[in-house]
Formats: sequence, C-alpha cells, structure tokens
Amino acid sequence: MSNSSTMGKIHNFSAGPSILAPETIDNCVKGLQNFANTGLSVLEVSHRSKEFVAVVDETRGLIKDLLNIPDNYDIIFLGGGASMQFCMVAYNLLKEKAAYINTGTWSKKAIKEAKLFGQVDVIASSEEDNFNNIPKSYTIPGDADYFHITSNNTIFGTQFQEFPNSPVPMICDMSSDILSRPIEVSNFDMIYAGAQKNMGPAGVTVVIIKKSLLENPKNGIPTMLNYQTHIDKESMFNTPPVFPIYAMYQNLKWVKASGGVAEMERRAQNKAALLYNEIDSNPKFEGTAKKEDRSHMNACFKLVDETKNEAFMEAATQAGCSGIKGHRSVGGFRASMYNALPLESVQVLVDVMKKF
Amino acid sequence: MSNSSTMGKIHNFSAGPSILAPETIDNCVKGLQNFANTGLSVLEVSHRSKEFVAVVDETRGLIKDLLNIPDNYDIIFLGGGASMQFCMVAYNLLKEKAAYINTGTWSKKAIKEAKLFGQVDVIASSEEDNFNNIPKSYTIPGDADYFHITSNNTIFGTQFQEFPNSPVPMICDMSSDILSRPIEVSNFDMIYAGAQKNMGPAGVTVVIIKKSLLENPKNGIPTMLNYQTHIDKESMFNTPPVFPIYAMYQNLKWVKASGGVAEMERRAQNKAALLYNEIDSNPKFEGTAKKEDRSHMNACFKLVDETKNEAFMEAATQAGCSGIKGHRSVGGFRASMYNALPLESVQVLVDVMKKF
Repeated sequence: MSNSSTMGKIHNFSAGPSILAPETIDNCVKGLQNFANTGLSVLEVSHRSKEFVAVVDETRGLIKDLLNIPDNYDIIFLGGGASMQFCMVAYNLLKEKAAYINTGTWSKKAIKEAKLFGQVDVIASSEEDNFNNIPKSYTIPGDADYFHITSNNTIFGTQFQEFPNSPVPMICDMSSDILSRPIEVSNFDMIYAGAQKNMGPAGVTVVIIKKSLLENPKNGIPTMLNYQTHIDKESMFNTPPVFPIYAMYQNLKWVKASGGVAEMERRAQNKAALLYNEIDSNPKFEGTAKKEDRSHMNACFKLVDETKNEAFMEAATQAGCSGIKGHRSVGGFRASMYNALPLESVQVLVDVMKKF
Repeated sequence: MSNSSTMGKIHNFSAGPSILAPETIDNCVKGLQNFANTGLSVLEVSHRSKEFVAVVDETRGLIKDLLNIPDNYDIIFLGGGASMQFCMVAYNLLKEKAAYINTGTWSKKAIKEAKLFGQVDVIASSEEDNFNNIPKSYTIPGDADYFHITSNNTIFGTQFQEFPNSPVPMICDMSSDILSRPIEVSNFDMIYAGAQKNMGPAGVTVVIIKKSLLENPKNGIPTMLNYQTHIDKESMFNTPPVFPIYAMYQNLKWVKASGGVAEMERRAQNKAALLYNEIDSNPKFEGTAKKEDRSHMNACFKLVDETKNEAFMEAATQAGCSGIKGHRSVGGFRASMYNALPLESVQVLVDVMKKF
C-alpha cells in the first residue's frame, strides 16, 4: 500500500502529534525494513552502533543548520516530553527566583513545577481573558535567575509575534512553533520543544541550551534530570528514544529539502492568511484570539450560532478534515496548520466553511 | 523489500536495543502506512484518538495477561528509560532508608540516585568479584522503605535464578529479562523495565506497581516524576511515546501468539543450554560468570588465548553474527539471546566456536 495515496484522503489538522510529510513516513518505513544497509531494522540496532550514532550527529547538525544555532549552544535529545522540561528547567536553573508569563495551559503547568524549586514571579498573564491574547506590558525583574515564556499556545491559538528583550536568561517552550519561522537563537539562553508538531513524532524532546547557562550548576540534581549529563554524553548517557530520533531526522531532512525554515514560514503565512481571511469575512464564524496575537500554527474559531456545531463538524468530516474539534477550554473549532499540512488542506476546510 | 528476507542474513546478538520478531516489524510498517484504518500514519495521530487509546488499553491488557498480574497492580508507560526510574523510585518511595543489592553497573547507578534522597544500605555486593555472581547471604532490614534488586545484569551475564523473600516492599529492575520467564508478581511491590530488550523498541519504560505502595505519598514530587500522576491519567497525562508503545503492542501480540511467557522460557533455556554447553565443553573458551548465576539472556565468555580475539570476532562476523563484542568492563564476548532470537542463530554461533 502506498503511503502517499492513503494520506491524500485525509486532511490532518491534528493539534499534535500532527501531520508529517509523506516523504518522512516513507523514509521511516525504509528504516524499519533495513536501516542504513545493516540488514536490521532501526528498531533493533544498538544505539551505540556507528550507523545510529551517525543519525544522532546528523540530526543535531540539521537542527543547528536549520535554526542557524551559534556554536556556543548545545543540542540534546531527551525523553519525557516538554512536560518533563517544566520540571528540569527549574531543577537545573531556579536558584532563588524565576519570572514567568502565563499565556495558557502549558505556561501554567511550567509555573506549577517551578514553584517546587523556588520563588516564581508571574509577571504577566492573560488568564482573565481566557488567554485570548499575549500580554504586552510587563517588566522582567533583573534579579531573576531566568525568564520563561511559551511561544505558541496550541489550545488558545495565540503566539508571540515578537519576542521580548530580556535582561536575564530567556527560556522558551517552542514545542508548537519551532521550525515554522526563523528565530534569532542568540536572544534565548534555552529553547525546548517536544518533537510531535513540526519536529517529528512523539517520544523525543529537543533542548537547545547556551553553554554559559550551566556554568554555575546547582547541587544534588538527579543524573537523568541534569542537562550536563546529556550534554557530556551527547544524548547517549542511556538508551535514547531511537526511533523517534530517527523519524525526526527524516523529517528534518524533508524541511531542509523543502527550502528550510524561511520556506516553512512562507507556507505558514499563506495557510494562516487563507483560513483567518475566511474566519473574518464569513459572518457565520468568529475567531477567538485577538487578531494581533493569532497563531500561525493553531487557528481557533467558533460558529456564531453554536447550535450548528455538530452540523459543521459533520460537513468538515465528510470533506476529509480530521482533528478540528476545539479544546474543551475554548470550545468551537481548532485547525492546526503545522509545517507538513498542505495549503490544499486549508482550502478544503475553507470551502466547507464557505458552503456551510 | 521484505523484512523477513533481510533479517535472515544477520544473527542479531545485540545487548539492547535488541532483535525483534519479523512479524513485529512487519506490523509496525503497516501502522506507519495506515494506522487502524484511519488513513493516517501512527506517527501523526492524536494520542487521544480512540484508535490510539485502544492500543494503550490493549497493551496494558497484554502485559497483565502475559505476566499474570493481579488486579491490585497498576501498569503505566513512561519515557526516559530505566535510568529515569532509578531516580523516580527513590523520589517517590525513599522516606528514610532503602536497601539495595549491588550486582553490577545498573544496580550501581540505581544506588547512586537513591543516595540523593535518603540513606541507602547496600546489603550485599559482588563488586569485589567483578560482579561474576549474585550474592546469596544477606539480611534485608525490616525497617527499610523498600528493597531493590536488578534481576538480570546484561554487562556481567548474571541473573537471579531465585528471588529473595523480602520483609519490606521489593522493587525490581527487570529491564533485561522481563517476559523471558514466568514470575510471581505478587512477590514484588514494583517491577520496572526499559522496553528495548524483550518488550519492544527503545523509548518507553513499563512500570508495574502495587496500589498499596503509593498509599502514603511523599510531598513535593514534581508532577512528571510522580507515579500517581501517570496512574491517574492512565499514561496519558502528557503525550506518551506513541510509536514505541505501538511497537511494544505489536511485540506483545507476537509473544502471546508464540505461546506466552512459558514458551519464551522454554526457548531461552534451550538457547542458553546450547551456548553454555559449548562454552563449557570447548577448551578454547571459558565463561566469565559463576555457573549457578548465569544469565539466560546474556552469555559472557572469553577465549582462553585472548590474542585470538580479533580472529574469532572476524569468523563470527563472517557467519553473520552481529553484536557479540563483550562490554569493556568484562572483555571477551557477549551473546544476548532475547526472546526474538531464534535457536538457529545460537547454533550458527556455536558452529563458529566449534570450527575455530
């Protein structure tokens, strides 16, 4: 059965784990069948084999290349998801006080974990507006150990369109918009991202960390939770999530071959423009996020007449649109438009909206 | 390209990640191409889709069934590997004092992490003998919070052939021999295992935990490190490692269809007997572990004349044997004979030894 042909029928707007390019999946199939001409499946080779070490090295190189990461940063691959980073960030870096902006569910979870390790100043929050915007006016305390933000909020459909200037190390959870636009990495001391949106499949988390951030480490950090452990062993302290890394490698090759992050941004802008134009011009629909803070990855919208929700869902499903139910904390609909989603899929959804 | 035909050429003795059955890999390929007739790849479906929730439920059910786990145990799936469990066990359970037996590299790592959280009594160790045996005489303190052992030592080729009776909760790292023999789960309060030997591929860890063990929880455990988090959310607190779980599911189905754990034990005994008989009867070779403690999973052996090491490795490689280099802390050779390794592969290695 050809992967490409089965994919064509479904328009996958899943919020994550999310759509991957057919080429990525085809190459994963090849790796399952015969990895790097070893005659073995990538599922059953030693993580210390020269062939898999090469995959890890090349994956690191692709991320460095695609995001234009300076040499004074390390790149590591961990298990546990971004949720584990909420704890690890604070375990490693919170000595006295940290500053957080609360822009939604993921920020709140990060704040909750940090509070176990020290004082947490939530210097801005859009919670009173059900997180429909990105706060703009706040002061980052100059004596904080670090300042933490979530770049894109999958559930509420908001996104930092410009990043703040921080007087202290800035740490960003970029799980849901990394690789969708060029970023100036040197403005951040740490970026982390669960892979399962634009990076690859679920099961691996990428951490990009400025070497100077770990110069004065805290004591007593458990070995597996200590960033330095994984930096020193180049993500091979213990058995890493081999297949998720391999699939990420295949996906990063696809991003590069497709034109890199600048091209991903161009595509994201086109897809977002197409969908938000329909939301704004069609009197049956309304967007839920403030226009200036709208996410290019996750568009949240509602029917003005919410009694028609089920009928719209039915029409969209009939047209092959999958994964557009809104999160329960917002309601309505959410269309996630990650890198691998073609413009054609957005057009199909827009056509359903027009006809409805 | 057929997976089965490419596999035939290589005899995969890798210590882990290790050989998987061709059926497991073929079914993983199918899931990559069209998961549960969704028209999507298993890499790009929501972990909360009903199809994937069903996989998690069935995987849990298969483990319960294969290991005959009583109803008063929970089964959860985590990322991070068994190395993360070294920390989580102590984070959750070490209140004052814990007892450990040191039988090798993995025990030592578990002990190291536990020391961050309380007093650790190493009540027995075979370190003076370079871990060539399993200690037999020791007293488990009745006032310890728990007692921890490593059932099988991949690096040194030793294995508990009988488990101790413990007056306190017994916790076992069974990463490298789970599913290779029937066990009486009710003798343990917790069993954990990185999947990448007999369970499935790297990237997921199985934890089997008696409900009563968590009745008086410690305070201040980070959310992701707290077993109760994952029990309460049925391993869906955050995005789990979707594909590693799916591959484990396929592998567990293969174990069951092949006759279950009793049949795996029968096969393991036959494979181990074939290889150890050759080691013991061939004057060119000698085993490194004490006979009564020999592992049925990992056989460690040396050439009496170690100047011939390279020549033997060359002969074995020519015959298609992969992954038999011994760990640097033991030297010589190691043949790992996990569930999916056919007896024929052991015969090929034995033939190389006879001819050498």
